[in-house]
Amino acid sequence: MSGSSFGEIFRVVTFGESHGPAVGCVIDGCPAGLRLTAEDIARDLRRRRPGGGGPATNRIEADDPEILSGIFEGRTLGTPIAVLIRNANHRSSDYDNLRDLYRPGHADWTWEAKYGFRDHRGGGRSSGRETAGRVAAGAVAKTFLAERGITLRVWTSSAAGIAVPGPAYENIDWEEAERNLLHMPHRESAERALAKLEELRRQGDSAGCTISCSALGLPPGLGEPVFGKLNARIAAAMLSLGAVKGVEFGLGFAASKGGGAALNDRPLPAPAETAWAKDLPPDVPALTWRTNNAGGTLGGISTGMPLNFTVAFKPISSVSRKQQTVDRGGEIRELSIGGRHDICAAPRAVPVVEAMTALVLADLLLLQRCAGV
Amino acid sequence: MSGSSFGEIFRVVTFGESHGPAVGCVIDGCPAGLRLTAEDIARDLRRRRPGGGGPATNRIEADDPEILSGIFEGRTLGTPIAVLIRNANHRSSDYDNLRDLYRPGHADWTWEAKYGFRDHRGGGRSSGRETAGRVAAGAVAKTFLAERGITLRVWTSSAAGIAVPGPAYENIDWEEAERNLLHMPHRESAERALAKLEELRRQGDSAGCTISCSALGLPPGLGEPVFGKLNARIAAAMLSLGAVKGVEFGLGFAASKGGGAALNDRPLPAPAETAWAKDLPPDVPALTWRTNNAGGTLGGISTGMPLNFTVAFKPISSVSRKQQTVDRGGEIRELSIGGRHDICAAPRAVPVVEAMTALVLADLLLLQRCAGV
Amino acid sequence: MSGSSFGEIFRVVTFGESHGPAVGCVIDGCPAGLRLTAEDIARDLRRRRPGGGGPATNRIEADDPEILSGIFEGRTLGTPIAVLIRNANHRSSDYDNLRDLYRPGHADWTWEAKYGFRDHRGGGRSSGRETAGRVAAGAVAKTFLAERGITLRVWTSSAAGIAVPGPAYENIDWEEAERNLLHMPHRESAERALAKLEELRRQGDSAGCTISCSALGLPPGLGEPVFGKLNARIAAAMLSLGAVKGVEFGLGFAASKGGGAALNDRPLPAPAETAWAKDLPPDVPALTWRTNNAGGTLGGISTGMPLNFTVAFKPISSVSRKQQTVDRGGEIRELSIGGRHDICAAPRAVPVVEAMTALVLADLLLLQRCAGV
Amino acid sequence: MSGSSFGEIFRVVTFGESHGPAVGCVIDGCPAGLRLTAEDIARDLRRRRPGGGGPATNRIEADDPEILSGIFEGRTLGTPIAVLIRNANHRSSDYDNLRDLYRPGHADWTWEAKYGFRDHRGGGRSSGRETAGRVAAGAVAKTFLAERGITLRVWTSSAAGIAVPGPAYENIDWEEAERNLLHMPHRESAERALAKLEELRRQGDSAGCTISCSALGLPPGLGEPVFGKLNARIAAAMLSLGAVKGVEFGLGFAASKGGGAALNDRPLPAPAETAWAKDLPPDVPALTWRTNNAGGTLGGISTGMPLNFTVAFKPISSVSRKQQTVDRGGEIRELSIGGRHDICAAPRAVPVVEAMTALVLADLLLLQRCAGV
Repeated sequence: MSGSSFGEIFRVVTFGESHGPAVGCVIDGCPAGLRLTAEDIARDLRRRRPGGGGPATNRIEADDPEILSGIFEGRTLGTPIAVLIRNANHRSSDYDNLRDLYRPGHADWTWEAKYGFRDHRGGGRSSGRETAGRVAAGAVAKTFLAERGITLRVWTSSAAGIAVPGPAYENIDWEEAERNLLHMPHRESAERALAKLEELRRQGDSAGCTISCSALGLPPGLGEPVFGKLNARIAAAMLSLGAVKGVEFGLGFAASKGGGAALNDRPLPAPAETAWAKDLPPDVPALTWRTNNAGGTLGGISTGMPLNFTVAFKPISSVSRKQQTVDRGGEIRELSIGGRHDICAAPRAVPVVEAMTALVLADLLLLQRCAGV
Repeated sequence: MSGSSFGEIFRVVTFGESHGPAVGCVIDGCPAGLRLTAEDIARDLRRRRPGGGGPATNRIEADDPEILSGIFEGRTLGTPIAVLIRNANHRSSDYDNLRDLYRPGHADWTWEAKYGFRDHRGGGRSSGRETAGRVAAGAVAKTFLAERGITLRVWTSSAAGIAVPGPAYENIDWEEAERNLLHMPHRESAERALAKLEELRRQGDSAGCTISCSALGLPPGLGEPVFGKLNARIAAAMLSLGAVKGVEFGLGFAASKGGGAALNDRPLPAPAETAWAKDLPPDVPALTWRTNNAGGTLGGISTGMPLNFTVAFKPISSVSRKQQTVDRGGEIRELSIGGRHDICAAPRAVPVVEAMTALVLADLLLLQRCAGV
Repeated sequence: MSGSSFGEIFRVVTFGESHGPAVGCVIDGCPAGLRLTAEDIARDLRRRRPGGGGPATNRIEADDPEILSGIFEGRTLGTPIAVLIRNANHRSSDYDNLRDLYRPGHADWTWEAKYGFRDHRGGGRSSGRETAGRVAAGAVAKTFLAERGITLRVWTSSAAGIAVPGPAYENIDWEEAERNLLHMPHRESAERALAKLEELRRQGDSAGCTISCSALGLPPGLGEPVFGKLNARIAAAMLSLGAVKGVEFGLGFAASKGGGAALNDRPLPAPAETAWAKDLPPDVPALTWRTNNAGGTLGGISTGMPLNFTVAFKPISSVSRKQQTVDRGGEIRELSIGGRHDICAAPRAVPVVEAMTALVLADLLLLQRCAGV
Repeated sequence: MSGSSFGEIFRVVTFGESHGPAVGCVIDGCPAGLRLTAEDIARDLRRRRPGGGGPATNRIEADDPEILSGIFEGRTLGTPIAVLIRNANHRSSDYDNLRDLYRPGHADWTWEAKYGFRDHRGGGRSSGRETAGRVAAGAVAKTFLAERGITLRVWTSSAAGIAVPGPAYENIDWEEAERNLLHMPHRESAERALAKLEELRRQGDSAGCTISCSALGLPPGLGEPVFGKLNARIAAAMLSLGAVKGVEFGLGFAASKGGGAALNDRPLPAPAETAWAKDLPPDVPALTWRTNNAGGTLGGISTGMPLNFTVAFKPISSVSRKQQTVDRGGEIRELSIGGRHDICAAPRAVPVVEAMTALVLADLLLLQRCAGV
């Protein structure tokens, strides 16, 4: 969790600026023997890619990943897996006027305050483009999770203030989510949100959203006590996305308003067919819970219930409407950001949240092997 | 951020079970030359200690810290600072009935699912008692921050659903916060919340709360891009507390509902007297912002505005009202948790949130020294 | 491997100055379920303790370790194991004259050049006393190794230039090593070396030595390729001891003079009874080697042969003979170091080398669990 | 120092198999503002490249590095620097016969014992080819060192048992080292060694060597006490090279035979013109030493004297003479390794030792910024 590096055992470093030659990642610590092809990675990169409609930018990126190392005859070697994604479509001159301007809501100035200078073209390293490397790494992690029967369900739970009707995480209509442009598991909400987004676009404005995740099939015991809690790692992963302003697990902020008598999930003996029951240590009974207010962890360790959390994305900071800002000389200036910009993080944030979740879980699955003698 | 270890340069490991001989911490990487006494640590431990009234437990802990190493003639040596806090008051037999029971809302069962066995006395390592080591380490970090003019303001922003009236983070009445039992910066809210908590206690119930933090005096440039963002580290720090279910920065979840045109903070030239302006790299103008919806970071790097965030604590899981649970044999049992228990994380969580924030900031201040050639 | 912290999974931090209140260690990441008592640790601390005769100091240290955490009912909990060893016998005033003097061969001045000041009493943190924390941690690691059938044999291979005859690592007489004061596996050499050391002591001089180690029962596959090689970690562990000036594996420096045709160890099918053969991946035959010039690794990964290496200790820097040095004011001064000092690192370095080896191997055994899917 | 990752602040991960698409590295944590071009990297890669004569292989590699990220307008951005080096010249079918054979002295079998399978072509990840990524990263570190006036001198101190005449590290003839094929700073020794190597080649044999390094211009204070000592990190760096069997600092193993009275280096007031004297903390006088038996560190922290160490390389394991080995089926087989192989690590190991040294020093220079308040 230093700079561009993430993970303890399943360690990832991502690299690349938005308008440099390439972005990508290196995974050091992926176990050997995992079946993997470039197409497994390409598939997720396509989901992250801007589409032709909806709230996403029109920038066309081929995003064909090249696996440079770590795979031999279709299986991981245990060596670093380097993935290269060329930046095919850069028109850097689009950004010449931004060299000496600090865009509101962007990291332009904080970057200069930190490093003294920056690559101003398209946000450089703080561009959303950087997440392509995360998605590539996450695709590898997902193949590892899949082998263990773990599935990640990630969806847009609200956009532009229009939310999927409640109770969160329950009775999610996955088919609908995969069908509509916003990846929202409720058709009517999706239609209303798309209409609202179109209206905001016409007004030169942008929108925020929330993305929710449910990780299914997690065995109990994942997460390290104290600082390495499952929740702590997920929270770090989510807040490592530039536009994220909050994260909550299970009932989340609503839990701060209730009482323990009502909100404590009640344990029950787990059904006999529970997949992970046979892997429990001796003398530990298999449990389940009547409710999942906790969102899948107790004391930061997974319970075997779905891991449920929701992430808040602020509105896209680039808006075509005129904004006031300051230039390098300290003068107040007006700025209108044209060009190809998303106006809402959804739905492109969906595979990114999924990828980061996969990276956390892959790492914790490996660490869990070291828990006992 | 592995297990009980936290930080990259200013590294902390905490140790100790609730009813073992001691809790404490070792800080490896504290800079040399910092003036520090045991009283600096004792002062914060007293703030964390259960008081005589209000929502806190009646367990009496002397909590006199002993500094075992790392200090010589009143100054840090640059070597590990070990702090020992004896567990003075354990009545382990109070817990004999819990050896084979899994308390709802606690980590009893997840701990066994992970490690095969646990110290059942008072929650063992997953007890709130563990945070004494964090507070001791945080006290050291705070002296380092204080030398740089950084102040942490942490308060109870809501308890049992009763919130300090808004706008959050602005016009906070610190004197009032230091005066009332809940550390709430609004007298009427505090009185109402205390009355509500008393009512819940009589009913055998407990309550949740939110704790808010404003870090003042932070220079811009703190936080590492991508995975090491200031927000990511704060989020990990907060979600490393067992009862925390969410965190949000600045506008937080509310930002997911608005538009960029309204929510982007507008930059302005900073006033001439800005303390950190002289430390900026050449050719980078000093900025300030008309609003602070972002909560003090852009792209995960501090802006020089206050770092503002709020943390949601679930209700205390131990309630005296009868609850159903399961025992080691898989049988459903009734459980009533008597004894000395807080019924709300506030106000004792205040110094803990403060300590974790201090640890993150101390680490990032050191890392920031490595940003440029 | 930062500051006073060591290890990836089985992580140790040591703390304490020679004449401060205590030394000790915290182990974060020891697997749960390991049987461990304070006596397991005390036993190794006694071996490290200065004895009554031979080349060792007369300082008396009780060195009774107190386990502060991480053990419950005789087994490790998976939580941090903190071990406290009080410094019982400090006469700090012995060192008043050293406050402004830089002893030749010691870290007095480099410490000040780094940190600006130091604890001058008995070397402070750079004292050999610091290794008590390592030995305590190593004792825990050794119990983990013992469960896996791994045994460490560590001995004095030379002292004051007098070496045990014969091909190194072969036909070692362990009974003799455990019998004589120098822990040398050859009686005549031990007697000659002790006589030589006594002569040097009378002359106010000191002596160097070499310590050798043979780790038996290691399964093949330990060590991570590239930077995490088994040899790399052992080398770092050994050079982390202040008086160590070199390390060599197997034939070591002699291998730099020979040719591959003669020095390549020749593989053979392993005998049927080889313990680890059943744990090999499918389609990998069990091998052994006719010779062990490589010292137990190929490509930095263990072969299943004994891990053999030798470490060179410089002479003890404190000598009672007069030496010239410089004081804080930059003046040349004469110095005679009296008091209670060893004159040779052997035999007290033996349990320290053993402890560091155990820490490396415990960590790599855990990491090895993450190598495959 | 885990797997293929190295460093705390200046962190490097290398990737790539010998006969895969590419090798390379990513540096995460290089400070911003460093002037750097692809040619800075290409220059060192050419020094590592096999030449046309002498003891090196005839494999032709263009080794033109492509910088994929982290540089903008000729300066480092503070973001990850990814360097890609294509593997231009692979004839994988050369290696088909090795798929089921374990070459003596190579990591073929240990790799399989660890991971279950391997890329058998040219050694895969355990090939010397992997060091190209290290050399690329080291070239970046060297530009950082050069800005601070630090120079690395690395040379062949012996080859095939023929050594440069002594005293080691003194009066080194650099011009001669740069002139002859072996990079040996003594013409007559180089000629004799080359003749000896030619003779060994004709006999189908190979040779070992030693490489020595002197780092000049280091300020005092580098290295972290206890486990992060300068020597410990250099030792880990050197033993991370597959063919290295030992390392020694200053007098090294010879120091284990002498006495402290003679071997302690005697401190002196440093000359007035000492470059780093002005950077010392207050009240710490500048020192120098009459001798440098310690090799540039005391207590693992740099003294300001040259950092001197020597590394032992075993003979190249691939020899054209027939060797006995074992195949996958457990059958004893005869093997003759033809093709393009070096017969001695020198001189190609010279830039690799230099690169690893540069990586360690760059990291410690950054860490040193965090030593004081």
